[in-house]
This record gives sequence, C-alpha cells and structure tokens, in this order.
Amino acid sequence: MPAPVSNAMVAHLALESEIGGYEAADARQEEIDRGYADIASLINAAPRNVAVVANATAGFIQAMSSFDFAPGDAIVTTRCDYTSNQIQYLALQKRLGVRVHHAADLPEGGVDPDSVRDLLRRERCRLVAVSWVPTNSGLVQDVEAVGEVCAELGVPYIVDACQAVGQIVVDVQRLRCDYLSATARKFLRGPRGIGFLYASDNALTRGDHPLFVDMRGARWTSAGSYEVAPTARRYEDWEFPYAQVLGQSAAVRYALDVGIETAHDRAWELAATLRSSLEAIPGVRVLDRGRERCAIVTAAIAGWHAADIARELTARRINTATSLREYGILDFDQKRVESAVRISPHYYNLEAEIEEVVGAVKELAGRRLERP
Amino acid sequence: MPAPVSNAMVAHLALESEIGGYEAADARQEEIDRGYADIASLINAAPRNVAVVANATAGFIQAMSSFDFAPGDAIVTTRCDYTSNQIQYLALQKRLGVRVHHAADLPEGGVDPDSVRDLLRRERCRLVAVSWVPTNSGLVQDVEAVGEVCAELGVPYIVDACQAVGQIVVDVQRLRCDYLSATARKFLRGPRGIGFLYASDNALTRGDHPLFVDMRGARWTSAGSYEVAPTARRYEDWEFPYAQVLGQSAAVRYALDVGIETAHDRAWELAATLRSSLEAIPGVRVLDRGRERCAIVTAAIAGWHAADIARELTARRINTATSLREYGILDFDQKRVESAVRISPHYYNLEAEIEEVVGAVKELAGRRLERP
Repeated sequence: MPAPVSNAMVAHLALESEIGGYEAADARQEEIDRGYADIASLINAAPRNVAVVANATAGFIQAMSSFDFAPGDAIVTTRCDYTSNQIQYLALQKRLGVRVHHAADLPEGGVDPDSVRDLLRRERCRLVAVSWVPTNSGLVQDVEAVGEVCAELGVPYIVDACQAVGQIVVDVQRLRCDYLSATARKFLRGPRGIGFLYASDNALTRGDHPLFVDMRGARWTSAGSYEVAPTARRYEDWEFPYAQVLGQSAAVRYALDVGIETAHDRAWELAATLRSSLEAIPGVRVLDRGRERCAIVTAAIAGWHAADIARELTARRINTATSLREYGILDFDQKRVESAVRISPHYYNLEAEIEEVVGAVKELAGRRLERP
Repeated sequence: MPAPVSNAMVAHLALESEIGGYEAADARQEEIDRGYADIASLINAAPRNVAVVANATAGFIQAMSSFDFAPGDAIVTTRCDYTSNQIQYLALQKRLGVRVHHAADLPEGGVDPDSVRDLLRRERCRLVAVSWVPTNSGLVQDVEAVGEVCAELGVPYIVDACQAVGQIVVDVQRLRCDYLSATARKFLRGPRGIGFLYASDNALTRGDHPLFVDMRGARWTSAGSYEVAPTARRYEDWEFPYAQVLGQSAAVRYALDVGIETAHDRAWELAATLRSSLEAIPGVRVLDRGRERCAIVTAAIAGWHAADIARELTARRINTATSLREYGILDFDQKRVESAVRISPHYYNLEAEIEEVVGAVKELAGRRLERP
C-alpha cells in the first residue's frame, strides 16, 4: 500500500476512536461519496453503477445470487476461472441443478470466444462468467471478445477483474459486461478486505437483486414487502469497515494519478524481462500461457515445491506467493505441475529487483540440479 | 473502541505496509488462531465452531444460505427480528416460495415461545430465526425458551446476537442454537466491519454449507467436485480485513477481562436509571418493552423527529442513534411512532453522563412542549 492509503485508514480509525463509529462515517461522507465517483472513472462507469463490497469474490457472489437459476439452466465459464468461482458454480450445480460448462481454450491458452458462442447456441445459458486474469498464472483472457459474443446472443455476462484492475485499463463499456467484480488489495495497491462491484444499467433495470439483500440494498415497506434500491447500492452490505472503504478510495485516486496505462506498461515490461530471464535458467519452467501475458509471472522449478521456493525468497526479503494445483485444477493438470511460484512485479519495482529475484531463483534451481 | 483494539489494528496496518499483506497475516497467525479460541470462550463453544465473518448480517446470511429451501417450507421468526433479516426472509419467500411466519408476541412484548411451538407443529418449518435484541429497542427476547421449543421439535435454530454479545452472557449450549451471529462493533466495543458466526456440531455434521462457499470453506478437488471444510471455516470468506480480525480478537479479550457479567450489570443499571429518568420528563415516551430490558434505551419525544434530537445531542457531544419505522415496521406500528432516539449506555459510562443526557432531553422536550 502506498502511504496515502494506510494514512487514510489510520486517520479514520483515529477519528472513530475520538468521536465514534457512526459519527466518523458521517464526518467523512463527502469523501466516501467521492470514492464512488473515482471508482466509476477508473472503470468508465457512472457512480450509480458502483457498489462497494468486501472483496472481488463477495461482489461476484452478489452478482451471481441475483439470478434465479432453475434446474437445467447453464452457466458457461472458462477453464481458467478463479477457484472460488469454480467452487461456486459447482455449488449451484449441486444445490439448484444448474449445468456448468467450461468453454474450450485457444491453442495458445485462454478461453476461445467461438467455443463460448457454440455453448450459448446449444445450451439454455443464463450467464457467462469469466475471470479476466486467473490467480495462478499470467494469462489474460480475451474478455472483450467474450463480451461481444454475449451481447450478440443476449446473455448476461460477469467479469471477475480481481487480478486485472490496476494493471490493465478497465472500460466496462468496451467489455459490454453486466457485472464486473474487483478487489482493492492487488494491483490497485489498496487495503485487504475491500473491493467493488460494477453493475450495468441493464442489470439494474432488469430488477434482479442479490438473494440476501439487506437494509442497505432494500427498504422494509410492510410486513410482507420490501423495495430494492434503484442503484448498485442493492449489492452492498449495510455494515462496512469504513477505514477500508476510505483506504480503497485513496488507492483508486493514487492509481488514477499514476495512470493505469503507465502502470500497465511498466509492470508488463518488468514481467516480460523477468519471464525471459527465468526461462534462461536451467530447471526453471515459466508456466504463463496466452496471447497476452500480464504482470503475474508463474514458474515451476525442478526438484522444488513452490512453497519452499517462496520461503527461501522471503528469507531474502523477496515477497512472492505460492499457487497450488487446487487453485486451478484444469490449468495445473494441463501444465502437469503441482505448484507454481507466483512473482508479480508492479510499476514501482526496479530492474535491479528483477535481477535480484532472477539471481536468487538461479541459485535455488542450481542447488537441486547439482544433487545426484 | 478501547485503546488495545485500535492499537492492534494500527499495528497490523503498519506491519502490512512494512512487510506485505500476506506476510503480515502469516506473521500474526498465532494471534489470529488465539482469536478463535477467545471468541469460543466468550460464547462457550469450541474454536472449530467459530467462523470470522464481516458482520452479524453476513454471518446470518451464511447460515441461512446453508438451507436448501423448497417451495412451501416455512421460516418462523419474530415480529421484532432485525430489518435486514426480515427483508431476507421476504426475499426467500419471493425467490423460493418459502413461507414466512411471525410468531405472536407475549402481552408484555417479545416473542411468545408457545406461539413458536404452535407454528412448528402446524407448518413444515425448516428454520426458526430470532433476533435476541432488536436494533430498535431495549427488548430482550427469550431466546433460551425458543431454543427449548426448537430442540423439542427438532427444528434448526438461528439466533442473531448482534446487539446481545458484550452486554449479555452468551452460552450457546444453553441457547441450544444451531447458529449464532454476532458483530464486533456494538457492545463488544470492537471495530466496524467484522463479526463472527457460531455453528454447532449438529450444523457441521449435517453437511450443509453456504450456497456460495469459497476457497476458504472448500477445496476444488476435480473439474466437477469440491470438498467442504469440516469446521466452521466453511462459513468464512477467503479474504479478510486482517486489521479488523485482530481488532475483534483484542476486543473479545478486553471484554473477557472486564467480565461480561460486570459489563452487563453496570450497563443495565445505567440503562434502568436512564429509562426511569426519561419517563419522568413530560413529552417523553420510553418505548422499550419486554420482561427484561437491556442497555438499549429508546424513546420518542413529542413534537420531535428522533433524527433532530440525535443531531441536537451530537452538538452537545452526546452520541445517540436514530431508529426509523422501516427498521422495525411491526414494532413501530404497534407503538404508533415513526422514529425513536436510541441511547445506549455501556459499562464505562458515568452516572454524570446519564444525568447530562437526561438534562439535554428534558431541555429539548420542554422547548417543543412550550410552543403553542
């Protein structure tokens, strides 16, 4: 998190301690409202289409739960959709008899929009859901092409932009999506435990609402009736961690000031350098596929479990993450790996840091290769 | 929030800035685990039965969404259940054809356990849900008596303890509930945006899980299958605002150190004093009903909208809240009021502060009564 983000949070917690929780939120109402406007500019939407939610998954759930699925309805998704989403499609299959279809990949990786079209023509499809960038690789799925297919065939479309926002310019009008979920804490450099959900005017006027709408999203009007909010507030919870809400706003403003294109160009360039340097190391296999590859770099190192590599790198003050097979079964099985180390440079990283991580991986890979 | 709570949060945010979000959570894992144990002692449960959730409503939703309601299934609840819960029962009615029944009140206020029994005998009841203390009055519902009825007739039972925890000793064994949802930020004096959910061993072994379980609560095991966590983790989201998680732990420990009985006795005594003093003011009507009345004091003041009273009190540095009719339609309509000012003393308040708020209300009430 950049300093303005943590400062915004700490300042709000101090204000809450000083004057009280409700009172502090009231005092910062203007700032909170401005946050919606800033998120809206970040994704080329209007503030009425923005809901603040706990994280990308929470937003995704609010969108998914707005559909009254019937047995036999189909959800079309991709082989590389995020684990939590995959589990939720299966939970809907188990509970409601929904059918889950994974569209085929292109030969180079990433969903094939033509396969989506075929499925939509064949199935009673209620929803297409695509993770723009999966959590476990640098793949960038062609969400715009899928959006065209959905628009052409009139099927609602959810994009999970959790790993995209902050490293890719997001324009919901170009994506032609009905919903887009995002999180603050990744490439946006915001706090943990907060995110946002975009809902299109189409989504709002269809009159759907999350199954478990609360008093933020609806008003109790009589013993047997309630009235849903006209805006995307219907997807929100009444209770918020306001320090996080303000931290997210600060992160969005910071990202807009840096410029998403600037952030994108620099982060992707560093990632490309990292990828080609890693590929040159004996025993290292870069796992990222797809026509476009983003600032998430994943690799498998012969003889190592990724968790051990990550631990070794942490000891060298290099923060990376571990992706396990269960985070992306279809993808990992195709790649025939059990785990991957995930290294995600961002625009603020230095070339020297890329060299440092490459040097460390080289040393670690060599250590196992030398063993009998 | 007491200082140890905000300090815990600020310290964690600083650690996140210093070493990274995942790294900070890893570094505090022991502390995080201890939080489950402390919450467990607070409610007389085991750590495996505790889930950390965003707030009481979020926990309540996770519990509710674990039932696969069929058309005609009944939910039995109370006239004084919390607004958001009431809206959600109606949303289930609309979407799934569930029937919602409000059990009758006792003459003195609060749900009549015999009415619950009658409904359970008559209806195909899947679930009984009761708000222990509603948001809009000092009523304390007899959740233990309802628990006995549910146990007797074998119907799952959810208690919303949002306003109870921290001011009433909670013993889930005595309540015989399957689920209990709670929030940190009210009488527990914890942070905004965090809470917990208790799920009994019965609930866990039934094998139900929230409809939208994520990768915290389940593991993706093959293209078409997933495996649910054996513990209450199945009700959690993968992503947490960890500063809040640690803040909640600190609040629970603080409350245990103070002692819930001590907190209860002192807060209720102050509330009783406040109530009798307010009742003596011409033009003031105390609205709290029920055999037992807790540390939430609500009143209507002739000639005033409660929001204006709250604003006047804020100007005098007295924090109160406003309850509107839509926060408790059945209750407000019975009381024939449109709004109520909610004044909630806690154990740390002073007698002098009670006198101060009484003096302020007296002055404000007098101002309108004097008018022609």
